[in-house]
Amino acid sequence: MIELRPQVLTADAFKPFGDVIETEDAERIPINQGTTDRFHNLAKVDVTDHDGQPLISIFRGQPRQQPIALELMERHPLGSQAFIPMDKRDYLVVVAKPTETVTPEDLVAFKARGDQGVNYHRSVWHHPLLVLIPDSEFLIVDRGGEGHNLDEVWFTEDQEKVFLITS
Amino acid sequence: MIELRPQVLTADAFKPFGDVIETEDAERIPINQGTTDRFHNLAKVDVTDHDGQPLISIFRGQPRQQPIALELMERHPLGSQAFIPMDKRDYLVVVAKPTETVTPEDLVAFKARGDQGVNYHRSVWHHPLLVLIPDSEFLIVDRGGEGHNLDEVWFTEDQEKVFLITS
Repeated sequence: MIELRPQVLTADAFKPFGDVIETEDAERIPINQGTTDRFHNLAKVDVTDHDGQPLISIFRGQPRQQPIALELMERHPLGSQAFIPMDKRDYLVVVAKPTETVTPEDLVAFKARGDQGVNYHRSVWHHPLLVLIPDSEFLIVDRGGEGHNLDEVWFTEDQEKVFLITS
Repeated sequence: MIELRPQVLTADAFKPFGDVIETEDAERIPINQGTTDRFHNLAKVDVTDHDGQPLISIFRGQPRQQPIALELMERHPLGSQAFIPMDKRDYLVVVAKPTETVTPEDLVAFKARGDQGVNYHRSVWHHPLLVLIPDSEFLIVDRGGEGHNLDEVWFTEDQEKVFLITS
């Protein structure tokens, strides 16, 4: 059995998987007659290949039973996918590098602060949304359009079981 | 002098100007083994003409002095621009239809709830961000790339003065 413990989410640690969308260390541009700071271009939005177009959606997530058994990973081979909390609540992220397939041994977990979004780069394996508080809402920016844009891997009975330890 | 009073923000009332990004009345798709609802494709993101690409940024806004004098409107002729609150705080929206120019008489104001985002369609006149509480943060989805994508109109001394009345 693998007990996976979340790391602190930083831009550096998350670099192999995507972007952390946050104001910390971002370029700050004063606009609107000095009433607004623009933290500019915080993610590599990669959604337009093969006639794709950007979509804005909202996900409302519910917590899973603890300890969280990780049984499924997915990826989007045609585009990036960004998750930004709409209520500043912490959440969990489980990812693996964009190799051909994914095993329980490949997983890496992060605890995201409520003021941090993540943008999974194209083909990065990620677990479906993992929230800690009921009805946590996220703004999603991902790809719409034709083409095969979802791969799923379910872990099998033969593989090591993996649990996310959050306490 | 014009005293502009905000209307309630609804998808219908906002239709001439853009989209309201909210879960209310949106298509709800259960995903992630039933742990998540996806409210799908809530805005017409229109940012890819003339080799544009989608950008994700964060704006942090400060309130203006009350009563708010409206002296400037702007528009983006090459793309849409979405604002989604990251802290569920109410805010104000002032818009005008995408005619060639804009006068104080054209303005329409809305009070947005903290769980409502707005997506200004291409060329819709809008006032810079108007927040009610210090350090209000918004996720922005707009267009990056070459080309002339900002028009501004400053109202002149000869024109009627216009104030936004929020109480």
